[in-house]
Amino acid sequence: MGPARYPQHHHRYGGRLLIIGFGSIGQGVLPLLLRHIEMPPEQLLVLSRRGDPSGIARAHGVVAEAVELTPANLRQELQRRIGASDFVLNLSVNVSSLALIALCRELGALYLDTCVEPWDGGYTDTRLQVAGRTNYAFREQALALRAPGNEGPTALLAHGANPGMVSYLVKQALIDLARDVGAPVAAPTRRDGWAALAEGLGVRVIHIAERDWQVAAPGQPPRRPGEFLNTWSVEGFVDEACHQPAELGWGTHEREWPADARRHDSGCQAAIYLNRPGAATRVRSWTPLAGPQQAFLVTHAESISIADHLTLGDAAAPRYRPTVHYAYRPCDDAVLSLADAAAREWRLGEGERVLKDEIEPAGRDELGVLLMGHAKGAYWLGSRLSTADARALCPHNSATSLQVTAAVMAGVVWAMRHPAAGIVEADDLPFAQMLDLMQPYLGDLVGAYSDWTPLVGRAWLFDEELDREDPWQFRNFRVA
Amino acid sequence: MGPARYPQHHHRYGGRLLIIGFGSIGQGVLPLLLRHIEMPPEQLLVLSRRGDPSGIARAHGVVAEAVELTPANLRQELQRRIGASDFVLNLSVNVSSLALIALCRELGALYLDTCVEPWDGGYTDTRLQVAGRTNYAFREQALALRAPGNEGPTALLAHGANPGMVSYLVKQALIDLARDVGAPVAAPTRRDGWAALAEGLGVRVIHIAERDWQVAAPGQPPRRPGEFLNTWSVEGFVDEACHQPAELGWGTHEREWPADARRHDSGCQAAIYLNRPGAATRVRSWTPLAGPQQAFLVTHAESISIADHLTLGDAAAPRYRPTVHYAYRPCDDAVLSLADAAAREWRLGEGERVLKDEIEPAGRDELGVLLMGHAKGAYWLGSRLSTADARALCPHNSATSLQVTAAVMAGVVWAMRHPAAGIVEADDLPFAQMLDLMQPYLGDLVGAYSDWTPLVGRAWLFDEELDREDPWQFRNFRVA
Repeated sequence: MGPARYPQHHHRYGGRLLIIGFGSIGQGVLPLLLRHIEMPPEQLLVLSRRGDPSGIARAHGVVAEAVELTPANLRQELQRRIGASDFVLNLSVNVSSLALIALCRELGALYLDTCVEPWDGGYTDTRLQVAGRTNYAFREQALALRAPGNEGPTALLAHGANPGMVSYLVKQALIDLARDVGAPVAAPTRRDGWAALAEGLGVRVIHIAERDWQVAAPGQPPRRPGEFLNTWSVEGFVDEACHQPAELGWGTHEREWPADARRHDSGCQAAIYLNRPGAATRVRSWTPLAGPQQAFLVTHAESISIADHLTLGDAAAPRYRPTVHYAYRPCDDAVLSLADAAAREWRLGEGERVLKDEIEPAGRDELGVLLMGHAKGAYWLGSRLSTADARALCPHNSATSLQVTAAVMAGVVWAMRHPAAGIVEADDLPFAQMLDLMQPYLGDLVGAYSDWTPLVGRAWLFDEELDREDPWQFRNFRVA
Repeated sequence: MGPARYPQHHHRYGGRLLIIGFGSIGQGVLPLLLRHIEMPPEQLLVLSRRGDPSGIARAHGVVAEAVELTPANLRQELQRRIGASDFVLNLSVNVSSLALIALCRELGALYLDTCVEPWDGGYTDTRLQVAGRTNYAFREQALALRAPGNEGPTALLAHGANPGMVSYLVKQALIDLARDVGAPVAAPTRRDGWAALAEGLGVRVIHIAERDWQVAAPGQPPRRPGEFLNTWSVEGFVDEACHQPAELGWGTHEREWPADARRHDSGCQAAIYLNRPGAATRVRSWTPLAGPQQAFLVTHAESISIADHLTLGDAAAPRYRPTVHYAYRPCDDAVLSLADAAAREWRLGEGERVLKDEIEPAGRDELGVLLMGHAKGAYWLGSRLSTADARALCPHNSATSLQVTAAVMAGVVWAMRHPAAGIVEADDLPFAQMLDLMQPYLGDLVGAYSDWTPLVGRAWLFDEELDREDPWQFRNFRVA
């Protein structure tokens, strides 16, 4: 398992590449970019709030400038540094994706982010209605920048592990399923083809089902009470889990409208939100190593884009759509950190820390898609990667970060190869080719069937209001 | 802080003392009993399922026999070993308190337990209605063994830290409160006097508010996934938290009936239950070191007995009663263990372990009562004890166990001094004298006021249905 396995360069690039933000993902992706894209390090530039305190940019020959981008300075700071055919890789929190995309389109620059982010404070801007703080709203706003018939420079939205890679895993899982039920198909080439395949297979629910097993190694400082620990950006996680509402793609098989659910007034209608944060919304889910687990229904762009792409028929009254959402069981330290944050009504407390170098090498991250309701019950397809393997595959990475950085690298390569594709999402890209690019970094790609349903083992001690006729109803998944 | 502080012997005892069960509490109380009760170790006998694998009984010159008590052998095993004026100290799980009490009354033996327990499987006996598995039901059954006018040998029910000690803390807190609002009172001598004092002070809600800060020391084996860790009996905790319903004393100020609440058909009517386990029922609470915290509403005998004793007026339509319940934030490892148990729908998984010798010495347990709704807002009074101090005070103890074993020792002393008091609870005993007996082992006895209410910091990001007119409504405490 060494660098020899990868073709050294997927692409040769002559422009400048500006990395905005240099947290765990920025640090982890830099060696991957330099490994797989032929470009001198002097053509890369890092802009981040705190510069390069880890020294990782400098060690790779890349200049990092300590610049905090704001609505007031964004245009000036970007215009000084990039122009047509350059690349803006946005790995920050607190810098508006919309503002960056608009500016990149104006300047003719390519763009990629791992999450469509608002400006600092956007997730807790209480002047907005709750609907205005959803990923649904941010996605609609980004897609509205499209100019039909005039694609413009490629802007690849929300292209990390999830959102991002998991959209490809859903397509691969549909192909696997078709094969395993004895009705193999060629990969559809159009959006409707994928939706029809999912409908034909009877897929009712798709979880992005993740279990992060990573813990700090013995001898590392334990979590202090009130401290927020996570295996990736604390700020990013707290915003999506604690400050944004829970969101899910809403399937056509659902018979009961949740009391706290809300629809959107406009847009694709593929998703709804609940009037509560994801960290307060638990669901039953499943991964191969965990078996049954309770996870948090944290809002994520893929819940919306996958549901949207798998919709058949009219948006307002579709014929078919699966329920799609993220079911995330973060690492133990993050679970305890969330409990502390809940006690403070979702305000951050006393310090935060991203676990990376501290992680015990055997710690794994299981990140996959769980397709349910079809003839074979439940099928999980995903990446199972240990931190030891992640470190061997690429320095400055943990299991969690490498799943993201591999997808970022693949997305950058695709965008460079297709520089005039306009505003696109993972769901618009060729899944097999994209998976090929990232697969060397995903550890074991595991496919596993299960006869688990959210009704298994329920209600032996207390009555529960269950829908026993259809195990795959959202009511049955949700932890009341 | 050494043994010199304690009067060596509180009582001289000539009978036999049979300890049933020898887990963390049995092991921890043995040195306390031998320190404070003048009796030769040969007069003590331990009966437990697994004998004395730790060697702690043998080290104290006490014989331990490996005997599993069952409905079939109970009478024979007890009759062989005890008679009139002997003492049965029941520290087991899975042996029926009711059967033991009845037999002790027949044999003329004294009795004490820390929890009114059913036979093995009683908490998960699904032939019973949920109401039949409540602590309310078990308490009513035990109290029904009373023979008015013919007290019989003393049987002290549910006398550990909580239930037990906390009933005394409530009384001390009421005295403190009266003093601090400028209306000092002498300690009431009758039950109605205490209830009138609580009513006069405006106490609406009482939490038994605990935060267990203990963690395993560095270098100790970490929790394996699925393993259940706790600082006291795993089996005892899982039964009360996961298998029994959540129960609470139901106050007269409550304006809204919870949708999942149920009343009992008979008995004192002081408490209700929710149709769900306590481990699935979170409430907002407060301790001095934690500040605001989310805790589990775990059923406990004191929620019922304290509410019952503080009731004024007719049981069915009382004039005054506070809402009383346990709000328990167990140690971090137990919180994660509960999450695993939830995923298995409350079935125990792969192994269990009681943390005692592994605990990091600075780890503390904060156990107190939180009286709310009065003129000064909220008042917490309780024990704050570190494991280092607990170990210095008495071998074979952690902070958690010593709070229990000190109360057990005090209860045994009181029962020996008052051998014909019949079936009694902590609420029936003289609080000041009882606190004096246990206080040397409680670490810092801390009294702290707070302006915290469950409305503090709420609903800044999402609407919540709150009762803003009365912060002390159960609706406001409960985590939806």
